[in-house]
Order: sequence, then C-alpha cells, then structure tokens
Amino acid sequence: MSHLRLALCQLDTVVGELDGNAARIIDSLARVEAEGADIVAFPELAITGYPPEDLLLKPAFVAHNLAALERVAAATSTCAALVGFVDVAGDEDLDDAVAHAAGAGAVAREAAIRGAPRRLRNAVAVCAGGCVVGVYHKRRLPNYGVFDEERWFAPGTAPLQLYEVAGMSVGVSICEDLWFPNGAIPLQAAGGAGLVVNVNASPYSMARQADRLAVARERVAESGCNIAYVNQVGGQDELVFDGGSFVMDANGDLLAEAARFTQATLVVDIPVHAGSRPPTLPVIAVSVGPRDPVARRPPAIPAPLTEEAEVYEALVVGTRDYIRKNGFTDAVIGLSGGVDSSLVAAIAVDALGAAHVHGLSMPSRYSSRGSVTDATTLAEQLGIDLCGVPIEAVHSAFTEVLVGALGTVPTGLTDENLQSRIRGVVLMAVSNARGWIVLTTGNKSELATGYSTLYGDSAGGFAVIKDVPKTLVYRLCRYRNSREGRELIPESVLTKPPSAELRPDQRDDQSLPPYDTLDPLIEALVLNDRSIADVAGSGYDPELVARVASLVDGAEYKRRQSPPGVRITAKAFGKDRRMPITNRYRDPAPETMSTVPGAGTSRDDGAVPGA
Amino acid sequence: MSHLRLALCQLDTVVGELDGNAARIIDSLARVEAEGADIVAFPELAITGYPPEDLLLKPAFVAHNLAALERVAAATSTCAALVGFVDVAGDEDLDDAVAHAAGAGAVAREAAIRGAPRRLRNAVAVCAGGCVVGVYHKRRLPNYGVFDEERWFAPGTAPLQLYEVAGMSVGVSICEDLWFPNGAIPLQAAGGAGLVVNVNASPYSMARQADRLAVARERVAESGCNIAYVNQVGGQDELVFDGGSFVMDANGDLLAEAARFTQATLVVDIPVHAGSRPPTLPVIAVSVGPRDPVARRPPAIPAPLTEEAEVYEALVVGTRDYIRKNGFTDAVIGLSGGVDSSLVAAIAVDALGAAHVHGLSMPSRYSSRGSVTDATTLAEQLGIDLCGVPIEAVHSAFTEVLVGALGTVPTGLTDENLQSRIRGVVLMAVSNARGWIVLTTGNKSELATGYSTLYGDSAGGFAVIKDVPKTLVYRLCRYRNSREGRELIPESVLTKPPSAELRPDQRDDQSLPPYDTLDPLIEALVLNDRSIADVAGSGYDPELVARVASLVDGAEYKRRQSPPGVRITAKAFGKDRRMPITNRYRDPAPETMSTVPGAGTSRDDGAVPGA
Repeated sequence: MSHLRLALCQLDTVVGELDGNAARIIDSLARVEAEGADIVAFPELAITGYPPEDLLLKPAFVAHNLAALERVAAATSTCAALVGFVDVAGDEDLDDAVAHAAGAGAVAREAAIRGAPRRLRNAVAVCAGGCVVGVYHKRRLPNYGVFDEERWFAPGTAPLQLYEVAGMSVGVSICEDLWFPNGAIPLQAAGGAGLVVNVNASPYSMARQADRLAVARERVAESGCNIAYVNQVGGQDELVFDGGSFVMDANGDLLAEAARFTQATLVVDIPVHAGSRPPTLPVIAVSVGPRDPVARRPPAIPAPLTEEAEVYEALVVGTRDYIRKNGFTDAVIGLSGGVDSSLVAAIAVDALGAAHVHGLSMPSRYSSRGSVTDATTLAEQLGIDLCGVPIEAVHSAFTEVLVGALGTVPTGLTDENLQSRIRGVVLMAVSNARGWIVLTTGNKSELATGYSTLYGDSAGGFAVIKDVPKTLVYRLCRYRNSREGRELIPESVLTKPPSAELRPDQRDDQSLPPYDTLDPLIEALVLNDRSIADVAGSGYDPELVARVASLVDGAEYKRRQSPPGVRITAKAFGKDRRMPITNRYRDPAPETMSTVPGAGTSRDDGAVPGA
Repeated sequence: MSHLRLALCQLDTVVGELDGNAARIIDSLARVEAEGADIVAFPELAITGYPPEDLLLKPAFVAHNLAALERVAAATSTCAALVGFVDVAGDEDLDDAVAHAAGAGAVAREAAIRGAPRRLRNAVAVCAGGCVVGVYHKRRLPNYGVFDEERWFAPGTAPLQLYEVAGMSVGVSICEDLWFPNGAIPLQAAGGAGLVVNVNASPYSMARQADRLAVARERVAESGCNIAYVNQVGGQDELVFDGGSFVMDANGDLLAEAARFTQATLVVDIPVHAGSRPPTLPVIAVSVGPRDPVARRPPAIPAPLTEEAEVYEALVVGTRDYIRKNGFTDAVIGLSGGVDSSLVAAIAVDALGAAHVHGLSMPSRYSSRGSVTDATTLAEQLGIDLCGVPIEAVHSAFTEVLVGALGTVPTGLTDENLQSRIRGVVLMAVSNARGWIVLTTGNKSELATGYSTLYGDSAGGFAVIKDVPKTLVYRLCRYRNSREGRELIPESVLTKPPSAELRPDQRDDQSLPPYDTLDPLIEALVLNDRSIADVAGSGYDPELVARVASLVDGAEYKRRQSPPGVRITAKAFGKDRRMPITNRYRDPAPETMSTVPGAGTSRDDGAVPGA
C-alpha cells in the first residue's frame, strides 16, 4: 500500500516578526523535505504569529504579510506546504458593500473604516512548486473568551476544494472549523478527502488537549477521514500555546502525537487506499515530489501530562517567552518567604536559569524571622542571588512625611499598603538600574478578591501566577519538589499559615475564607458565571458566597491595572473576562440571607471602594 | 393637521443597576405622559445600561433584566414606550445549532458555552397599555473600535413590523442600523413608516454629532420619512455618552435637538399627513392615549458647541460620573504647577465642586520655585485646598537603601522614576487614609510615547486627560480661562516650557519633539494606522517619524497598566486599540533613511525595553 508522508511543524512563531516567521517556515520546510515529506503543515497565521490583534488594522502590516507569504511560496519545491497568513481577497458581497458605502456621502469615511478590516480573511495558502496553488479561508470565527476574530476577519464563503498529494485527496481547515458539526471537514470528506489538515493556534488551558482529541474523534466519526491537527507552541502575552499536534485515523485511533510545550516536527506516513471513489469536489493536483516507497513506523505517542505538570510547563513557557520575546535576559523577584514568591522564583529559574534570576528580600518591622530565613533557604536551594533591602528607614521617613498630610501617623490599611508600595518602588528601581524585569507574585485567589496592593505587590512587568488559585499554588510547589526529589521550596514555606506580614500577627484567614473554601467559590462565580443563589444551593453558606461575590465585583479596578500573566484556566482575568469597572449590578442574595456584607478586603486601597 | 407627540428621554443610566434604571424609565414615562406624549423613546439597552459587557454572560443578570422590563411594561398606559433591553428570544437557526451541538458528544459543553451568549439580542421592546406589544432586534452589530457586540449578541433576523401611534405608522431601529444604506430604516419607510425612531448608546468623540446629523440626513434622503434619534448621556468607564438627541423631518430639516452632555427630555409634535398610502408591512395598533389637539411649537435648537467646549464638557462628565457612580465624593491630585495637572484640577472642580477637590504639592530637590508658586496660585484661583508634602526626606532615605542593592547611588532614569514613584505612594496613602480617588494627570502625547513613570505619575484611579494630546491641553486651558474671564489657570503655567523637573534644567523637548510636531505624528500613526513611509511622504522627517513610531510601539506595556480615562478621539488608548505587548513588527523605514534610532524615552522605566 502506498502512503502519504505528512509533516506537522509545531513552531514557536513571534507576533509581528514577519520576516523571522517566514525564515522559520522556510528552514522547517527544507528539513522536512529532506525527510521525504510530501506535505507539511504550519500553524494558523504562521506568517504573522497569533494573535496579531490590531496590527491587522495597519494596511502596511497586511501588505508585508503578503510579501512574506510570497517568499515562503517561492521556497517550496517537492513538498507541498500549508502556510497560515492574512488574506485580503475580497468577495463580491464585501466589494459591493464597500463600494456602496464609499459613494454614500458624508458617511463614506465612516463606512470605509468600519468595513475595511472585515475584508481580511484568516487564511491558509497551499504552496507547492514555487507558488501558491490554492487558498482556504477560515469559516468559523471565534469571537468569545480571549478571541476577537470577527473584529478583523470576514468568514470564508468560497467553494471548497481539495488538493491531490501523493495519491490522496487532502482538505484544509482552520482551528474553529473543527469544533462544530456540519462544517468544512465533513463536507470535504464527503467530497472525497481522505485526509483533512486542521491548522491551529489553540491556546492552553487545563485539560484542553483531552477536549481537542475528543472533538477530533467526533469529527472523524462524522466524516470518516483522517484528521491531522497542527498547533503552534510558545507564549504570547497572556496566552501560552501548548502544541500537542496529532494525527488521528479514520477509526478515531491516534497515529501520532507531538510533545507539548516545545517545538516539534511530527512526520507520519498515512496509508493511501487505492481505488477509493473519485472526489466530487474540485481537486487541484499538487503532487510534485519523488516518493519514499518505504513507510516508516509512526513515532511513539507521549504519555499524557498530569495536571500539575502541564500547568507548571505552561507557566515556565509563558514566563520565558514573555521575557525573551520582549528582549530581557534577567528577572528580579521580591522574596517574602511565602509560598507565592517561592513558586514564582522556581518557575523563573526553570525559565531563565538560576544565574538570571535575582531575589530581593525586603523585610519590614513586621516580617517574621522565619520568613526571612525561608527566603534565604529558598535562594540557596534554587542557586539564585539574594539581596537584603530592609525598608524600615524608608517606612519611617514616609510615616513622618505623611503626618504632615494626614495630621496623624498612617495606620491600618494605609500603613499596610504603604509597606507594600515601598517594596514595589525598590523593585522598580532595581529593574530600572539593572534592566531586569520585575516578576510579580500575586495568585488568582488574591486577584479575584482584591487582596493585594495596587502599585505594591502587584507592580511589575509580568504576573506569573495570576491565573493560579492559591490551592493550586501549593500543589505546584509540591509537584516541583517531588520532581526534584528534594525540598527545592522549603517545607516550612508550605506549612506555615499564609500571611502578608503587614501588621503584627496578620494572617490571610483574618480577611478571607480559607483558600480551600474560597477557590471553589471563585471558580463557580467567575469561571462559571453562576449566581449567588445557585452557588449557595450547592451547599455553601449564602452569606459567604455573597461576600466573595462582592469582593470579586469590587476588585475589578485593581485587576484592570495588573500586568499580563499566564492564562491556565478556561477563564483568566484578562481578555477573557471583560467586566465594567463602573458596575452597580448586585446579584440578589438568596432569601435565606439576613444581610449582605459590604465589600472591601483588609488590603483594599481606596482607588475605588468595593461597593 | 393632526400630530404625533414624541418624547425622547436622554437618560443617564448606570450599567448593571437594573432596578435603578427601570425606576428612571418609569419616572420619565410618568412625566412625559403628563405632557401628553403619545410615544416616548429611551436609549439603547436602557434597562441594563450600556455597555454591560460580560455581565451578559451571567444568566441571572439577563433574567433580572427581563424582570425589570416587565415592571416597566406594566407601568405603561396611554403613552407607548420604546425600551432598550436584552432579549433571549431565539430563532430557529440558533435553536437548531445549539440543540445539535448539545447532542454531539464530548464537545457538548464546549459548544453550549460558545453558542449560548450569541443567542442574546440587543433589543427594543414596544410597551403600551401595561404590556410588551412588540420587540425589535438590532440587525447591525458593531464589532470594531470600542465595540464587541458580536461577542454577546446575534443579529436580528425577524420580519419587520410597524406600530400605529396617533395615526402614524412608526418603525423602530437601533443605533448601528442607522449607519448603513439598505437597512431597516428604508425598508420600514418603504413599508409605510412615517417615522422611524432610532435608539442609541453612541459614545462621544470629537465632531461626532455632525457625523450623526449627516448620516441621518442620508437615511432621510434614502427613506423619505421622519427620523428620531435618542441617545443616552453620562460617563461609563472610558466612554462618555453625549446625548444630542434630535428629530429630523422627511426633508432633512432638524425639527428639534436636545442639549449635549446633560439629561434632557425632548418633546416634539410631528405632523401626521392624512391620506398617506396604507402600510405594506404588518402594523400593530398601539394607539391608546387621549390626544392633545393643539400642536406645540418645537423647542429651540441649541447652538453647536465649539471643539474646545464639547471636549471640555466630555472630560467633566466622564470624570464626574466615574467618580460618583463608583461611590466617591472627593478627589486628590498632585499639583506640580504644570499645565496637565492644572487642567485636571480645573476639570475636577467643575465636576465635583471646589470643596471636594484636594491638591498635593510634592516638591523635590529639582522643583523650581516658579512651579511651587504656580501650584499655589492655581489652588487659590480654583478655591481648593493645597497641602505641601516635600519628598526630599523620603528621596534621601530611598537613595541610601538602594545603595545597598545597587552598590551605588541611583542616577539617571532610576533616580527620575524614583521621585515620580514616591509621589505616587504619597498620593495613594492620602487616598487610602481619606477615601479620596487619585486623579492622574498624564496626557495622550505622554501615554503614546511612554513619557511617564509606571506606578509614578501614572498611578491613580482615573486618568482624566489620557486621550487629550498636549497641544489640545493648552487649548482647553485657554478655553476655560476665557469662559471664566480671568486666569483660573495662571498664564505662567501656559507659557513656561514643559518640564518633568526630575533633574536639573530638564525640559520635555530634550526627550521628545516639540508637541506641535509630535501630536500630528501620533494622530497619523495611531489614529490613522499610517505607515512610516506614508507619513514621511507627507513632508515629515523620516527619522523623526520612525523614532516616534518606535516610542509608540515600545510603550504598550505601560499603557496596559494605566487607569481608565475619558475617550474623546475616534481612537483612544484602551478598548479602541488592542495591540500585542509582545510585538516584533517594525514598520520598515523609508529607503531614504540611514538608520532607525532605538526606542526608549528619557523616562523609560525598564519593565519592558522599547525594542
């Protein structure tokens, strides 16, 4: 039986680096051609990187993307290449609309501005023998969660076509097209495709790979053809792309799967069944290469990652890529001896190497001896340098100056936030002087409830664990220690009660419910958008649920000013959740409740009160 | 000739305040009914406030919105009311898609989540005699600029219908439906409508009202019917709605226009021509009221505002509403004696009253005597209190502490940013202690080029003039002085060279081009997305254009952490411009250029380097 040799190139592209991405594609193409590949697929929008966002509104950017595609196409010879790019091919409907608007008087400018970006298409070019032989336009445009594709693109409406490669009819589709029944894939299969390649820029969230395999199995069941899924890899602002490219046969069996979170090329031979019925869709013959007559054994399928392992890898990749792609080499972290900063330091060391991570210990009059010792031990275990910068002298100087403004010594929240902000200023001064990026250490439980200080502990360039709930922070620390086989993060860090140490004997649970109660409530209210009554109906204290909901609502203004960080859940605070700050909606409490407590955590900082 | 008495209620709704908005509508309804109105129109999504954003993903929120609409409908009697709300009415296409997805195996949850929000409609209910007699679904959904309506809504597809009120056939449409030819309005007119009411939540930008009148004139020319336009008013996060509701007759003449930037009710009698041909669209009779047989003279049409006047009003309204709707009464501002903080203080006084605005003067060792004097004079002129908080002692304490971390006294940018951040910490401490919101004073020219200190001068709850270019800052100061007839803002503030005063003899023009050169370049590169080559072709020095473009690209990370502020242009930094931070796109410079200078302003703060 003959075969088609398919290569999936799981590349780490960089948004906006048009020439660099084209060079990455051309390099990979040469490599897989040398391995005898008949066809190679690259990720969605591989030329521009994903997501290019409002760069797409710049006509020059789109033109440069087309020029880069032409260079890639010119580099193809015996191996066909599927290359994601931004197409400007209009269709008649759109041309008419724009022409009509342009002739419509005063509104012309308006309509042209509104209509023009939507003429773009999220596209894949089929390139072979030095030119573009066909183009597919994405038909389903995601416009929810972190996605805004209808902001820039019009959906594809052109008739489907197939490409004959090594005796097999091949269909092309893009990402979201896979996720709905009755779409391009079953139509291509019904029209004669033996293989449909689906090119993706699918961001990571927990357990996402299992979803992808499940939906591919559904499409296979619907279509009866082989499906190849290629994904990009690497971090882009808050998103991490996790790869996991795979090939599934017409029985729903996995033929091959690439490693996650790393660049990889998967080369798979797919049997071509002679005597299949002739395609009914139009077919463009692109079969140009000499064939390797000997089919190779498929590569081994990697074992699935545990939840902790995949989240940890996502955090490392997201952190490393944000830092490196923005031109930094080193990071600085305030080490309090607490669990959050300890985890962030461990991630940073795995991302950058210990020599490029720098700790600052900034004890105040309220810091415990144990915390200072824990920070020192952590730095030793990680092999990073640690510089002590006691903030007492600055704290005293501020206190004195503020007496002039306030008529009294600052106390309570004002004094707690003051200490946190002094540390923020020290970190930023070191960042300015050394050129190191500041990594902030707040977790999702804090970000959700506003239990942090604006411009204080939340100040910095990248918020590594902003989407990691506190209970998962602990699990990740234990995972990393267990992987290392020793206490990389000291056990005492994991066992002492969490505290901000901004006043004597402070503990988080004086302001917040215990984290193993809080985290499921945040998931119910934020990720699942459930009402207070609904959550309370699942067995939670209604007053507690209402209080947490109120904290979440009241902290939106702080979240809006937080740095980007890695998304690991299906709904991070960021592009995923677009809540108004000015928002008087208060989900009515269940009738069993006596009062709704007011908002405001013990570390609220007054830029906007919670209620 | 008989007439229809139409009322347009230009309300200030609050996002999320469902019961409050319903109460506002019911109050207004009673007032216009007492004035003999036959029909009254309220703004788009009046029940929820606009834009409700991801509150729409909460099923409980949508359900409460429907309950609030029912209460409003129950309150109607003799006057028909057009009430904006979120409808959940599905159509068969959508029901099919969701049902299909729900039965599709492992992907069910996924598809349900993706499909569900899109079943919502941006709707207007026609209410009369105590119930909802008809519903219109918005057909054109804006999904560009600050708008994300396709994230939440499906477009309306139901057949059009008309409503007979006081002998006139009336059509209903929503906002964006007005802006395209061949839409609902000409179809309703062709079907027999004598009046089409267009309900809006149209945010302010400069000269927007002229655009609205022009496009209404085009629709009138296309349709040959009267058009009534009702808009909401008031601030919502970065948006300001400016009202300007109007009625235009079938000749394109303006019958009435409401004041801008203030709540208003416009009551207009529109002649009903007997013997018009019978409608061809289905008509629902909702004519229930006793008629006032005597037509009243239309209200006077206000003179158009000058550019400075309308921008100034937008800034006052946006600031006042953000502050009040978030529960604050007072604001605190760092007064440097410069033009930006002087303008912000004047706006704050107009928004809140002088007794609710508090100045802090925070001189450093580099502050000039003139600046301190100017701040004092300004506070006296505005009648606000001014507290002096010299930062020298804190600056010295920080310097000493940082020597430990850096091995040397902080100099250059590190020291400049340090001073700015100390002021940020003082402002936030006063905010925490007093409960006053901090207003930041950065302008658009600074925000564009990154000429500001993260967590320093950019720290605060609301950034009043973040969308105002520096040259317009000067024009607004002169406008406000001229309106007052005296130097509210001292002339010396307007004539001295701009300086951050963070090192001896510092001036802005040592780091940036003169503002009258810079501001047009920012407009060309940011608002108009023009390429460097294109802008240089308009007669600018290519190296200068490339340098400004590089500054703009390199400052994205700072803008991402800036507080919200009033949008006054057609593209503010905010929801309007969604640029990746990690972005290696560098628009190639024209061939005439020798070198492209690197990014980085004199106040760059190292969280991400510019290139």
